[in-house]
Amino acid sequence: MRILSGIQPSGRLHVGNYFGMMEPAVRLQDEGEAFYFIADYHSLTTVHDPEELRRNVRDVAIDFLACGLDPARATFFRQSDVPEVTELSWLLSTVTPMGFLNRCHSYKDKTDRGLEATHGLFAYPVLMAADILIYDSNVVPVGEDQKQHLEVTRDIATKFNNRYGEVFTIPEPRIRDDKAKVPGLDGQKMSKSYGNIIEIFGDEKPTRKKIMSIVTDSTPVEAPKDPGGSIIIDLYRLVAGAGEVAAMEAEFRAGGVGYGDFKKRLFEALWEHFRPMRERREELLAAPDHVEGVLRDGAGRARAAARATLDRARTACGIS
Amino acid sequence: MRILSGIQPSGRLHVGNYFGMMEPAVRLQDEGEAFYFIADYHSLTTVHDPEELRRNVRDVAIDFLACGLDPARATFFRQSDVPEVTELSWLLSTVTPMGFLNRCHSYKDKTDRGLEATHGLFAYPVLMAADILIYDSNVVPVGEDQKQHLEVTRDIATKFNNRYGEVFTIPEPRIRDDKAKVPGLDGQKMSKSYGNIIEIFGDEKPTRKKIMSIVTDSTPVEAPKDPGGSIIIDLYRLVAGAGEVAAMEAEFRAGGVGYGDFKKRLFEALWEHFRPMRERREELLAAPDHVEGVLRDGAGRARAAARATLDRARTACGIS
Repeated sequence: MRILSGIQPSGRLHVGNYFGMMEPAVRLQDEGEAFYFIADYHSLTTVHDPEELRRNVRDVAIDFLACGLDPARATFFRQSDVPEVTELSWLLSTVTPMGFLNRCHSYKDKTDRGLEATHGLFAYPVLMAADILIYDSNVVPVGEDQKQHLEVTRDIATKFNNRYGEVFTIPEPRIRDDKAKVPGLDGQKMSKSYGNIIEIFGDEKPTRKKIMSIVTDSTPVEAPKDPGGSIIIDLYRLVAGAGEVAAMEAEFRAGGVGYGDFKKRLFEALWEHFRPMRERREELLAAPDHVEGVLRDGAGRARAAARATLDRARTACGIS
Repeated sequence: MRILSGIQPSGRLHVGNYFGMMEPAVRLQDEGEAFYFIADYHSLTTVHDPEELRRNVRDVAIDFLACGLDPARATFFRQSDVPEVTELSWLLSTVTPMGFLNRCHSYKDKTDRGLEATHGLFAYPVLMAADILIYDSNVVPVGEDQKQHLEVTRDIATKFNNRYGEVFTIPEPRIRDDKAKVPGLDGQKMSKSYGNIIEIFGDEKPTRKKIMSIVTDSTPVEAPKDPGGSIIIDLYRLVAGAGEVAAMEAEFRAGGVGYGDFKKRLFEALWEHFRPMRERREELLAAPDHVEGVLRDGAGRARAAARATLDRARTACGIS
């Protein structure tokens, strides 16, 4: 079973990214043959500074490797190191009714949010279909927002297969459980756009300061506190063992401990949780050639798989 | 000066194609460094039978070589042998406002004529821009119907250059003189869709029969005839010397010769005109490996030029 995940290279990772996307993605390598690509072609629709794009790609590569992606088991590569996807994207375009793209919410959503209404943004679902189909992916984990694009991928693949024969594997979606939202400092979903994030690889002092600034109510130290819905408890649950969480909840209810102390404990647990990844990341930062080698090696393997599918598609439609 | 021409692989050539497009295209190789590509990626938007597409590509390659395209002077290749254009097409898409494409008439014209409204058809001007820009083309001969697409190419190139620096050469159009329309058997413009064509490489008997069926008025043999606006004269002018044309015009005016005799003379002139090309074509038909070798050699040269431009573009936008 081949599982494909695209990774947006969008800057420094925060706790919300980590538990919402990265950790589940890394776990996929235990389930099957995992392919991870850093979606730099897609990034061009939003990032227009070449240095920023290079930095983001490098950062996300290092972060993923630091967080447990194992290049010996998974295939990890840059999307643009396999330009075959752009060729497949053209072949798919010629069977894709405009209606498929006009129906996609994401283009309208993105332009409504102020992104420039470019053809790249509009055509993105076709490139995404090529990304998925070129690796004969069986399973693609998607968030709710990408569900429609996977439907489009399946529809495009079916159109092509109907016209030219069985060329593509029809991928199955696996809807990611986004219900357990990671709260940010203010209790809203943690998100860069809300300015409420905790970076997973931030420096110690500012990270501690951020944790200490988590919004709480004004219950006095000695009074009992409600652990239900507490941002502190919800974040602590992500990085502490079940016993530790139960202990903190009991102390909440008992009273006598202030929020400040709980926050300190949260910080310590968080800092410890990410310690091995932080250390690994330091090593990787010092070994850019190693990281580049991993990506190049992954690209080699990915490209061989892509080439085989693309050759099938080219032959089927008559251009080779 | 580099001159770029795209060739639609759309089946057997007729006299209208030859004088309207092919002969002027072949003449370009005297003017500068001519690049000719057979637009098979584009063909996928209309030709859905892989065998038909392969046959059309082979036929147009042979026809062009038979008609004087000299692979020692010009670079002649299949579009799909340089897949770099599809990658450049994606890079260009990310700077192309949707408005540029929504304004293009051709998409609406084509879907109005019954072509399926696919994304390939819609996105075609971006791929055309990539075709032109990737070869640093200075001059692109275009018919009236392609004028708007060349404007779009210039606008996209300017957008990209403004954002990322001077990557692309801005191409100049050369508007092809379409005024001298070649008349078909019925006097309308010669066009496959009017069913009024004379193939340049048809067999002798059916070609003669076609010429003999040219529509004329009912002026009797002995009466003077008007050479102005005569289909026979207009076709004869394409394949006969000025002296011969003047002689036939004089005979028209003098009377005493019937249309049938003029048609016979037209047939002979036409048949002679295309004789060397017909003979060359027979040789090429017998040497498919030679033709394939010419295209492969052309692709090698084209690909080197494309690679250089694409690398510039990739580096400029930050994906390498």
